[in-house]
Amino acid sequence: MLVTEKVNQAKALLREFDIDCWITFVRETEINGDPTLAYIGPAQLTWHSALIIGKSGRTRAIVGRFDVKSVEDCGAWDEVVGYVTSIREPLTEYLRELDPRTIAVNYSEGSEICDGITHGMFLTLRRYLAEIGMAERIVSAEPVISALRERKTAGEVASMREAIRHTQEIFALVAGFIRLGRTEKEIAAFMQAEVKRRGIGLAWEPTHCPSVFTGPSGAEAHYGPTDTAVALGHVLNMDFGVKVGGYVSDMQRTFYVLESGETAAPPDVQRGFDTVVAAVEQTKRAMRPGVEGREVDAVARRLIVEAGYDEYPHALGHQVGRFAHDGTALLGPTWEKYAGKPFKKLEPGMVFTIEPRLTVPGRGVCTIEEMVLVTNEGCEWLSTPQKELLLIG
Amino acid sequence: MLVTEKVNQAKALLREFDIDCWITFVRETEINGDPTLAYIGPAQLTWHSALIIGKSGRTRAIVGRFDVKSVEDCGAWDEVVGYVTSIREPLTEYLRELDPRTIAVNYSEGSEICDGITHGMFLTLRRYLAEIGMAERIVSAEPVISALRERKTAGEVASMREAIRHTQEIFALVAGFIRLGRTEKEIAAFMQAEVKRRGIGLAWEPTHCPSVFTGPSGAEAHYGPTDTAVALGHVLNMDFGVKVGGYVSDMQRTFYVLESGETAAPPDVQRGFDTVVAAVEQTKRAMRPGVEGREVDAVARRLIVEAGYDEYPHALGHQVGRFAHDGTALLGPTWEKYAGKPFKKLEPGMVFTIEPRLTVPGRGVCTIEEMVLVTNEGCEWLSTPQKELLLIG
Repeated sequence: MLVTEKVNQAKALLREFDIDCWITFVRETEINGDPTLAYIGPAQLTWHSALIIGKSGRTRAIVGRFDVKSVEDCGAWDEVVGYVTSIREPLTEYLRELDPRTIAVNYSEGSEICDGITHGMFLTLRRYLAEIGMAERIVSAEPVISALRERKTAGEVASMREAIRHTQEIFALVAGFIRLGRTEKEIAAFMQAEVKRRGIGLAWEPTHCPSVFTGPSGAEAHYGPTDTAVALGHVLNMDFGVKVGGYVSDMQRTFYVLESGETAAPPDVQRGFDTVVAAVEQTKRAMRPGVEGREVDAVARRLIVEAGYDEYPHALGHQVGRFAHDGTALLGPTWEKYAGKPFKKLEPGMVFTIEPRLTVPGRGVCTIEEMVLVTNEGCEWLSTPQKELLLIG
Repeated sequence: MLVTEKVNQAKALLREFDIDCWITFVRETEINGDPTLAYIGPAQLTWHSALIIGKSGRTRAIVGRFDVKSVEDCGAWDEVVGYVTSIREPLTEYLRELDPRTIAVNYSEGSEICDGITHGMFLTLRRYLAEIGMAERIVSAEPVISALRERKTAGEVASMREAIRHTQEIFALVAGFIRLGRTEKEIAAFMQAEVKRRGIGLAWEPTHCPSVFTGPSGAEAHYGPTDTAVALGHVLNMDFGVKVGGYVSDMQRTFYVLESGETAAPPDVQRGFDTVVAAVEQTKRAMRPGVEGREVDAVARRLIVEAGYDEYPHALGHQVGRFAHDGTALLGPTWEKYAGKPFKKLEPGMVFTIEPRLTVPGRGVCTIEEMVLVTNEGCEWLSTPQKELLLIG
């Protein structure tokens, strides 16, 4: 279902980028996977396999005989050809018939998600193409793969909405678990147990999914949850996501632990939190197709600095998909380490986080991470945005 | 510990194969891993990373600053250099200093386990080397990687012995669970629950780990366990393995379900089983360094055919390591699909399965899979060989 959506999308992308033919060429993917395979084929392929999509819309998979059924089960491939001894003949015969001007292959120096073919496999493919006089037609498939990952289909967005729903429910449950004396590790364990109970997965490594940070000290100095216990007057925040149907969520929420006698957060905490909320809202209003990520980042960064806080030491937001950090376009400042990513323009179908942060001295870190979908006109919430501090006690 | 053993082994292999310098060059290994990284580095590396081992014994890892600690924690690297903006300068400066005649890189057309570098990363590395006039010094690291995987160290063998111990214990436990009417799926679920209880992993995909085959019909027609129930007079066999410390076992055992009144297996079943036992024993006696795998395969194949059974439709044995099917040398016939593997000579430190099989008409399949370690003089059992049918009922 997802695979059919993405293969159809790939056909349109080949027309958009004027590429005649795209070959994903893999073997023994359990040992050396190609991150693009999950979008267009079965979970694993064993022998030399070529998944070939043409600009005309014709699709053919040439795979080892015992992999034929798993490709057929994807439902996305018009022709599935099995071979016994070698892929050379069925592959070169088919390409001779297609006679494409350009043959896109999954390699890229600049983007790891577009760099799926191993060098040995590239040598084999180029050798086969040289035999039929087509070695010079190879181009990088980077534009196709990049757009395929970044422009989410309805099916992909549905999985992400489901992941977000679970994430928000678990944030609501853990609010009832946090109390004076609970440690970061205990809070994280509670959330992981709930993920397990629901039969879903974590969005990233269990060592820091969730990350839990309570109180003013060392909130940046560690990564995974520690034995630090919740105390009264603490600001507490969490970074957490789950995986559903291969797609993940990535969200943050901020809690405040009431001191005895308090019924609301004190002014310093409230002002910090409200500043983060305002930054998220202004960011969302600035997001629409054609805007560059650096422009979006600047909106929130300026608002926070003008409110008197230090600027956040990271990008404002990143794309989300099969990984928590997916895609190349970034809502980030033009710092050298982000290279060209902040200059990429937003496109409909991209899913971004918005995650400004600031420190309230002596209290902790206020941070919210929402998720939005870029639409034709602007962008829409995928998460239900946090507007109020989650009060504990 | 394991990493230190393997890095030290790699230094000796560079001398043996007269290669001046070996570079494992990776980035974002969670997305595009190199199967060799697990032997010489940390679980994951994020930014462009070069793990460089010299024939002189000098080792230097050049990695992104935030990956320095995880490489240092391996304890195997003399020098760990972190960078912030680009690996180009620290890498080319170091290579200029080393001035190696040959630079081995992880690519191979013929062996997927030696083909870890992506084509994009190869282009980057070659570009850097061209800047310092060393692009022509690149060679394939296949001989080094292949030997590094195949010649097991004491630490690797210890993990495999531990995996085998668990496997044998679980075979013993399941013998008490099998009875008239139990289905293959129920038997498999029992074994998987036991694996989970022990906090270890499965050796391969849970869909067919274990495979369970009971009775005479269709024992080759399916792969994973089915709803077929155990019946009296059935021969039942299983293929099963677990993973401990990153290393796996791969074993098979044969059971017989006594009919009412029987106290031993009937003569046809007993003769089939004894033939398999004899084939395993003769195989073990034929294994020693310098012998080619095809010669070893022929010993068991001949014995089974001469006893009047069909020859097994697969190789007699394969290497085991981090995967159930690891390494290249194979105890197999010279069938085209096995290419050069059956011609490779056995070397001390290789771990092989021995797994002949035969069908007892109307009863099922008798098969045993043992594991052995090639030593300087011959080979030794890693598993405790099955000599008697496991009788049920």
